[in-house]
Amino acid sequence: MAVVNPPANHDEKIEEQRAKMSFLFREDVAPGLRLEMDLNKIFFDGESEFQKIDVVETYFGKTLVTDGKTQSAQLDEFAYHESLVHPSLLRSAFTGNPPKSVFIGGGGELATAREVLRHKSVERCVMVDIDGKVIEVCKKFLPEWGGETVTSNKRFELVIGDAHKWMMETEEKFDVIIMDISDPIEAGPGIMLYTKEFYEHALTRLNMPGGVFVTQSGTADAVPAAHQSDRTTDTSCYGPIHNTLRSVFDCVVPYSTNIPSFGGDWGFMMAFQAPPGKDDKALVEKEWKFPSSPAVIDDLIEQQIEGGADELGLYDGDSHVGMFSLTKALRNLLKKDKRIMTRDNPVFMY
Amino acid sequence: MAVVNPPANHDEKIEEQRAKMSFLFREDVAPGLRLEMDLNKIFFDGESEFQKIDVVETYFGKTLVTDGKTQSAQLDEFAYHESLVHPSLLRSAFTGNPPKSVFIGGGGELATAREVLRHKSVERCVMVDIDGKVIEVCKKFLPEWGGETVTSNKRFELVIGDAHKWMMETEEKFDVIIMDISDPIEAGPGIMLYTKEFYEHALTRLNMPGGVFVTQSGTADAVPAAHQSDRTTDTSCYGPIHNTLRSVFDCVVPYSTNIPSFGGDWGFMMAFQAPPGKDDKALVEKEWKFPSSPAVIDDLIEQQIEGGADELGLYDGDSHVGMFSLTKALRNLLKKDKRIMTRDNPVFMY
Amino acid sequence: MAVVNPPANHDEKIEEQRAKMSFLFREDVAPGLRLEMDLNKIFFDGESEFQKIDVVETYFGKTLVTDGKTQSAQLDEFAYHESLVHPSLLRSAFTGNPPKSVFIGGGGELATAREVLRHKSVERCVMVDIDGKVIEVCKKFLPEWGGETVTSNKRFELVIGDAHKWMMETEEKFDVIIMDISDPIEAGPGIMLYTKEFYEHALTRLNMPGGVFVTQSGTADAVPAAHQSDRTTDTSCYGPIHNTLRSVFDCVVPYSTNIPSFGGDWGFMMAFQAPPGKDDKALVEKEWKFPSSPAVIDDLIEQQIEGGADELGLYDGDSHVGMFSLTKALRNLLKKDKRIMTRDNPVFMY
Amino acid sequence: MAVVNPPANHDEKIEEQRAKMSFLFREDVAPGLRLEMDLNKIFFDGESEFQKIDVVETYFGKTLVTDGKTQSAQLDEFAYHESLVHPSLLRSAFTGNPPKSVFIGGGGELATAREVLRHKSVERCVMVDIDGKVIEVCKKFLPEWGGETVTSNKRFELVIGDAHKWMMETEEKFDVIIMDISDPIEAGPGIMLYTKEFYEHALTRLNMPGGVFVTQSGTADAVPAAHQSDRTTDTSCYGPIHNTLRSVFDCVVPYSTNIPSFGGDWGFMMAFQAPPGKDDKALVEKEWKFPSSPAVIDDLIEQQIEGGADELGLYDGDSHVGMFSLTKALRNLLKKDKRIMTRDNPVFMY
Repeated sequence: MAVVNPPANHDEKIEEQRAKMSFLFREDVAPGLRLEMDLNKIFFDGESEFQKIDVVETYFGKTLVTDGKTQSAQLDEFAYHESLVHPSLLRSAFTGNPPKSVFIGGGGELATAREVLRHKSVERCVMVDIDGKVIEVCKKFLPEWGGETVTSNKRFELVIGDAHKWMMETEEKFDVIIMDISDPIEAGPGIMLYTKEFYEHALTRLNMPGGVFVTQSGTADAVPAAHQSDRTTDTSCYGPIHNTLRSVFDCVVPYSTNIPSFGGDWGFMMAFQAPPGKDDKALVEKEWKFPSSPAVIDDLIEQQIEGGADELGLYDGDSHVGMFSLTKALRNLLKKDKRIMTRDNPVFMY
Repeated sequence: MAVVNPPANHDEKIEEQRAKMSFLFREDVAPGLRLEMDLNKIFFDGESEFQKIDVVETYFGKTLVTDGKTQSAQLDEFAYHESLVHPSLLRSAFTGNPPKSVFIGGGGELATAREVLRHKSVERCVMVDIDGKVIEVCKKFLPEWGGETVTSNKRFELVIGDAHKWMMETEEKFDVIIMDISDPIEAGPGIMLYTKEFYEHALTRLNMPGGVFVTQSGTADAVPAAHQSDRTTDTSCYGPIHNTLRSVFDCVVPYSTNIPSFGGDWGFMMAFQAPPGKDDKALVEKEWKFPSSPAVIDDLIEQQIEGGADELGLYDGDSHVGMFSLTKALRNLLKKDKRIMTRDNPVFMY
Repeated sequence: MAVVNPPANHDEKIEEQRAKMSFLFREDVAPGLRLEMDLNKIFFDGESEFQKIDVVETYFGKTLVTDGKTQSAQLDEFAYHESLVHPSLLRSAFTGNPPKSVFIGGGGELATAREVLRHKSVERCVMVDIDGKVIEVCKKFLPEWGGETVTSNKRFELVIGDAHKWMMETEEKFDVIIMDISDPIEAGPGIMLYTKEFYEHALTRLNMPGGVFVTQSGTADAVPAAHQSDRTTDTSCYGPIHNTLRSVFDCVVPYSTNIPSFGGDWGFMMAFQAPPGKDDKALVEKEWKFPSSPAVIDDLIEQQIEGGADELGLYDGDSHVGMFSLTKALRNLLKKDKRIMTRDNPVFMY
Repeated sequence: MAVVNPPANHDEKIEEQRAKMSFLFREDVAPGLRLEMDLNKIFFDGESEFQKIDVVETYFGKTLVTDGKTQSAQLDEFAYHESLVHPSLLRSAFTGNPPKSVFIGGGGELATAREVLRHKSVERCVMVDIDGKVIEVCKKFLPEWGGETVTSNKRFELVIGDAHKWMMETEEKFDVIIMDISDPIEAGPGIMLYTKEFYEHALTRLNMPGGVFVTQSGTADAVPAAHQSDRTTDTSCYGPIHNTLRSVFDCVVPYSTNIPSFGGDWGFMMAFQAPPGKDDKALVEKEWKFPSSPAVIDDLIEQQIEGGADELGLYDGDSHVGMFSLTKALRNLLKKDKRIMTRDNPVFMY
């Protein structure tokens, strides 16, 4: 069949017709819960030796999808990447040690590196990602994520390889270590990067004092599903990652940001050692989470970030306070969770 | 986020993970009824000046989709195109006039022409389709539909243009006229090609005797939705097309074929004049629908089709009988319908 | 939140709003292919000891759904039940033995019995279904399927029990045995009813001559998915059921009917012995599939069915010819299939 | 068709089978974005003279759905209702005027009243909702939301009627006015309750000083869709409601809570007058949003709430800080919006 002669009201009618049909992208959020989006465009559909790779356009704008899972989307990638990067690098500066060297595990979209390179003090940013094809695809189709501007930056070093192996073998130390890797799902490759053993090793790779470790930590809704009366556990890994880091680091600071394209609030976890002479670890955590004033953060942004506050879309002093103020429901979830993730006893997220 | 080091059971687990997510293609079949397919691959995503054009892979194999509507699919395009073409061309031969010239209105996938060109008697096949881009895309991504083999055939002439306009202006006559055009939907461009006025004109463009007109006629389920107690009308155009052709031609023969990728049974309608001296039009119709034996059709196939029966996947004598044996429910629907489609009073399919 | 004061155009706007949202019923048709329907009403939502039972309203009207699978729907249940019952009972009459006793395995909706009881010659109809709850629900919510009218009929005997066990233990013989049971899916309970062993036993339970065995046989699209170039097998059981019956009975006659609510063409299989003295089994089959004239069937309907042709919506002489005229593609599928279903080697449908 | 004899592994297999099919609830979140949930149970399916009413069970637990829109769900209704009620009633107490009288517009689920009645100082709570049927259904199927316990409370008065009309006619004044009504959608009945005219009237119905007005304000994602480069406006009403209240009240305090069952972060807006002698309205707002310490809120909870902190699942001092810390992205959205909602120029949410 084929089109022949368009009638007068063709345009108007065709729009109605198009509204009735769809290419769609449907993604699991939890068992029995899915996000469904219109699939407006497909920019790229291919695969690497590690995964299926798609670049599509949905409600959330251009989106990188690997193995059917949203990695980051135009609408809110800035929220994810700013949340992952700036609290840690500014924490380092807050302690009087503006970060010079940063390690990124994963980070294929290059946007994590983009945010790291905004920091004037950073002299070296090493990123180790196993999938060179993802990086190529992002450079071509998602240049706003960082692309060529990042890879051609002299302070940036890209290693195509296994981040776990690289970390285990390197003798280098870093001021900040950022884990921008897939969730600890059973099918996922990064499960070893969410273990006590890895965190113990990572601690040895941090310059002290001032060194900060941060990892994305999966879904962390303000109202955890575990609250529901007939569910004894939730399907997130926010609690186990929290406990596991606590078993290694002096201070662990969980925080979260709403990332609509990820289906809700998203969790992050910073970990660092208490400064020499500061014995009250809870106080150290609290002084960072809720500084005397939001202006403390805003001042750090002006000092550290090239271009200052204008360059950031999500993060500032007020946002900082919100990000670190977990709800009572989410704090209760963290309190109740006693699991520790090890090589022999991993915990899988849905 | 990005992949890091794949675990031992990566492959197996990743398959499970992939099964949980999806790109999808969802297509309306009727109000409140949809087909939903996994979208395995996207070969092409673009648009012409007339429509959005996609070539994708679903359950039905490679599929041409325009403006979100399946045009034909690898699994069953042979069923659609054989059903559209062979009964008409063989009818012509059956009357002792093996067809030499054939007109195709629409037909952008080139598969209708592919089937026409199988007929040894055909010397000239003119195809007029408005959307050159669809033809290009089909040649590149759906070569099995016909592609280069069709367009380079010396008996084939391609006109990029408006089939309605071309027909109204031509002085040429044809042995068979095949309308392989979009359904008469309100948004559709082809609505004029489903009117009494057009059919009257088409009759003047047929060589007599032996000339046959055939049109695809939209959905024609064996169990029409109109049967449902609380529905007074159905959403198909099978009845109106039948009546409208009957108001113009001596003989009209409705038939149908199951085309799974179209969501069910699909309708076609042949129309022709009674041979000189044959006054009982119903008998003329019946002698064609139910020949004395299926072998009559099988013999015509051997005579007319290059390569004979082996070349066809759906159509033969037994299939012919099945295609022309409408169910009681569908025959009742046709009987009850009194609508005639004219320019001033078109009837729209859902 | 709650409604407050409706504005003037409330009704019109609320309709638009409702169109944007949905309760849905989505059913797998094949791997990667689903039917999705608006769920307009839920009449019943419960479960028996055997299965989840729902009575809902979709595009196909009121529908019985068990374990998420459509069992029969208002729009086309007549097509399914007429196809299952009449060809077999009339075959029996055609051989000069109007059926007096009929066994129904399964049949919980009561509509199969409804059709059987239309036959004037039937004196006894025994139905054995394991799930009494389904029968109750159908009587209450789907009275048009048969309901009280069937169960109060003196010729009807209902046994709540295991049809397989009942058949293995009974010493009674029947003129017609009808298997109206779930598809042979891996999760399904009826798998033993699709084995060579069961068919051999069933043959011993048929009165001869004239005895007919018929079973619903799952999906049987006119264009089988197996045709697709990169698929070596299809997901239906039409071929295996055909072969298995052929290994037991003299004559096996496959046929199909379009049942839109089942997602396409649906398969049935009749089996019987060649009459004494008729050695050409293929001829015996053919004489039944394509009687000398459709009038043969129409006459049988008038003789056998109380009320005659007016009572039937789908089946008559012309429909009979169509139902038994399988397409070349489907006949090829049957020819290629060599599997036989036994207790030890069952074949599962998707 | 019907079930017969279950095989040994029936249970396990049937679970797999059930996983393949679904009743679903799909709800629009924004144009091109939907939440899709498994529909595990349907407790009630009916309608009132105002709307379709369903009580179902999804991922979010038992859920009240009217006209296809989630009203509140078991998993997180506590988060919604605590957020709507406690900040306002405690604000009143914070100013030294523990609230005695509270008006609820809408509130049919009774959970808003449930939270109000936890406050020891409250002597009278009047709730005006137009749809008595919703209240009946909630009492029967969602007793945990409040039910009989609320309606039999002597401090509670229920009026079935039009909240707008009631407010326009009453001479009574309240300490707190809570608008728990549908979003201002075009189809929605409550559009008049989101206008400058209504807010002006509501201000006259507040006891001073200490009177607080609060309204649910629709979706308020931390990362507003308006940020996306090619969208000039967003589809929420958070900005317009904010502006409109600002045009009437001295102080307006926007806040938000993550409500997963609503598809993301949800907005609320408190409004009140500056206390006598406090001219710096921004400072008045700030002192409430970020009290000198979270303990200020925790103390108020202990004083005011029967049973104290143990009764609340979401709200406490730390949560308060998080709820009132809007992200930079959301604050920017509010700043840019200049629309004011009036009767003659309403603004509709998607």
